[in-house]
Amino acid sequence: MSAEKAPALITPRTLSGFRDYLPAVMLAREEVLRRAREVYRSYGFTPIDTPACESLDVLLGKGGDESDKLVYRVLSARGDKAEMGLRFDLTVPFARFSAQYINELGTPFKRYAMGPVWRGERPGQGRYREFWQCDFDTIGTTSNAADIEAALVINDLFTALQFDRFEIRINNRMVLNGLLESLGIADKAAPVLRSLDKLLKIGREKVAEEMVREAGITPEQANRVLMMTDLTGPNEQLLTDLEAWFGGANEKATAGIRCLRELLTVAKAAGVAEGRIKIDLSICRGLDYYTGTIYETFLTDLPGIGSVCSGGRYDNLASKYTKQVLPGVGASLGVDRLIAAMEELKHPLLTGATTPAQVLVVNFDAARLGDYQRIARALRAAGVSVEVFPDAKKVGVQLGYAEKRGFKLAVIAGPAEFEQGVWKVKDLAKREEKTIVEAEVVGAVQSAVG
Amino acid sequence: MSAEKAPALITPRTLSGFRDYLPAVMLAREEVLRRAREVYRSYGFTPIDTPACESLDVLLGKGGDESDKLVYRVLSARGDKAEMGLRFDLTVPFARFSAQYINELGTPFKRYAMGPVWRGERPGQGRYREFWQCDFDTIGTTSNAADIEAALVINDLFTALQFDRFEIRINNRMVLNGLLESLGIADKAAPVLRSLDKLLKIGREKVAEEMVREAGITPEQANRVLMMTDLTGPNEQLLTDLEAWFGGANEKATAGIRCLRELLTVAKAAGVAEGRIKIDLSICRGLDYYTGTIYETFLTDLPGIGSVCSGGRYDNLASKYTKQVLPGVGASLGVDRLIAAMEELKHPLLTGATTPAQVLVVNFDAARLGDYQRIARALRAAGVSVEVFPDAKKVGVQLGYAEKRGFKLAVIAGPAEFEQGVWKVKDLAKREEKTIVEAEVVGAVQSAVG
Repeated sequence: MSAEKAPALITPRTLSGFRDYLPAVMLAREEVLRRAREVYRSYGFTPIDTPACESLDVLLGKGGDESDKLVYRVLSARGDKAEMGLRFDLTVPFARFSAQYINELGTPFKRYAMGPVWRGERPGQGRYREFWQCDFDTIGTTSNAADIEAALVINDLFTALQFDRFEIRINNRMVLNGLLESLGIADKAAPVLRSLDKLLKIGREKVAEEMVREAGITPEQANRVLMMTDLTGPNEQLLTDLEAWFGGANEKATAGIRCLRELLTVAKAAGVAEGRIKIDLSICRGLDYYTGTIYETFLTDLPGIGSVCSGGRYDNLASKYTKQVLPGVGASLGVDRLIAAMEELKHPLLTGATTPAQVLVVNFDAARLGDYQRIARALRAAGVSVEVFPDAKKVGVQLGYAEKRGFKLAVIAGPAEFEQGVWKVKDLAKREEKTIVEAEVVGAVQSAVG
Repeated sequence: MSAEKAPALITPRTLSGFRDYLPAVMLAREEVLRRAREVYRSYGFTPIDTPACESLDVLLGKGGDESDKLVYRVLSARGDKAEMGLRFDLTVPFARFSAQYINELGTPFKRYAMGPVWRGERPGQGRYREFWQCDFDTIGTTSNAADIEAALVINDLFTALQFDRFEIRINNRMVLNGLLESLGIADKAAPVLRSLDKLLKIGREKVAEEMVREAGITPEQANRVLMMTDLTGPNEQLLTDLEAWFGGANEKATAGIRCLRELLTVAKAAGVAEGRIKIDLSICRGLDYYTGTIYETFLTDLPGIGSVCSGGRYDNLASKYTKQVLPGVGASLGVDRLIAAMEELKHPLLTGATTPAQVLVVNFDAARLGDYQRIARALRAAGVSVEVFPDAKKVGVQLGYAEKRGFKLAVIAGPAEFEQGVWKVKDLAKREEKTIVEAEVVGAVQSAVG
């Protein structure tokens, strides 16, 4: 025996603001991403990926920006230079990517991207320093067809994710900018809309105060802005009210209204359910770069968590990196927020199972492992996921394991069964057991697991 | 016009050693991961995920280690403290994860994990500072059944990835350790096996020299080690030769030989093709923690790139974080190396297409967008991926776009077709066009895209 002391154990833990995904939640996340991928692909969006680390000059704004402070700096491995940082969203890397390859790729270019992003924010309830985004964008076209399609994608996405109660709220920055223009405060658009974006959080009164304070507009102007964004009603009514409000006198607003109307018309023609898409003049997204259609998506049963899929149209994606003008439209699914919502809503994709497999082959006799793997292989070939228990422990222990993990069936054979050429197939939920000849096991299991 | 000068453009680029995935390669990577996921799941491995960033004490060895120098340090966002680093593999985070949750998870625990890892190495041909790993492990059991299963998983994985020419080479550290024991150099196992691991790279002579120099064994001992690892022949012959070599006198070697034999027997019973699994006494993996079965996987048509899926059995995964002993076995698919191989081999999963969609709906008349989205929606509902071109550009331009991207079909309708209630369906490769009544379009497209 050595006299050396064992080194002290290091406490296994995640860093503050970072999280592990355990099996039950990770199975749900994989399912969310799989379905999102399928929907995006069904519209011709193609996947791309960019590195987690980008050069700091690619990542950062002109300095002093609040968002710059959230960027994690990464040191070069053998030195102490901090020339790179972790991406804080998927939009900046996509802008850099587009500027770099657009001539090779051609336009229109439709891409999706899924991956973690990192922000050095104070962690809180459902707010992490690493979280997943899942974006789709069409660039290289100013056509409203792409804006309309984005709404169709969001609709298909939440339908595929088995939400039947959700609402896609749309607006158009041209309508908002037309309003500001008509009030003579077009140059104040950025701070006015940043304040308006806080409406749900801080309420009408505080928004008005902030507009006056931060944007330097008059209380009357602030009130006038909020009067228009207060308009509610069915879509058709709202469009008529907007037309009356502007009286055709503002070109921008007219164009914005026309885009909203076309979106609703085409969505209806394409078969989107009535009531799924709703004009909401108060949504605007805080970000300066949006210029046209705006999207937010709310879960009817959990509106308080905010929008779970948001985006909009922009005039120019990559002006920081290229003179080539790249207009586009896209949206981002907030994967972690959505999964938090699914947990709260006891969503059917969170099945509670911690295994993706449906069948456990019980290891009754270690010497028959070849037989257990043979039946498992036959089941796998038929599309059934099968785990073979590695140790010949007591059957009760193995069945307990199967129930805890969420397996549906157990398949069992010992000396008596091998002699007769049969297998016992046990339904773990119903606690029923059938004895089945080997040639019929695959069919029986298939029909039992659905 | 403002007199201000526009800020200088920032050159869009990736950092040295980092890469973007453009559509054609990314489509292949998604397909590789999808198939790997399906195979892992079919054996009951469940997904987990851990953060990219871990605390440095979790990540680093006892200092001075060569691998520690490869770890990228990450600064806290608002300060200059470097208390965290980017993971350099998926094994260390899994060890930390296991120590943290194993009582909640129970054993055996089978997990897979897929994601990027980061190493500050000098970049080179096919060697990146960010690359993807795709691991599976079974922990909490010493049963050889789990070792056997790992070989079955690798076999199914490469079959699912449409490789028909590959070889899984296996060995067992117990045989190697038995050999060292019998030569009285068991205490030199770590440096001896680290040298042996370089056999393919530097050759027999240099390995022998290094063993003498680094491990301090005699040239005769080095020669004896290499004599055994030189043994070649069919599996059964090799097992017989090994038994003769040891004559039953070394317990470890006997156990190792028994494990290898059982692996081959069960794999055969489970239906693994003859010749897929091959004993290779010279493979050992450099890492100190392996204690039993060892796996390497070679592509027959590209052996020079080295093993594309490697792993082995270990006695204790997480001793740095917990006193609980966690034996296990697993392997890691080198995704980027595999994709580089696929590019070199012109593998069928790299189709050359840069779109996941099969059908382009030509935008002939912008006013009929509702009709275009309606037919697209019907096709999507039938499982066909469909892109609607956003702008009513010339048909020739749209068809050129479709061909460049790799679409199979174009669906076209203008005033004449709308009047007759028909669509033109054009096969882009065959340059054939059919006119089809609307009710039959979905069926015709489905059968054309297969």
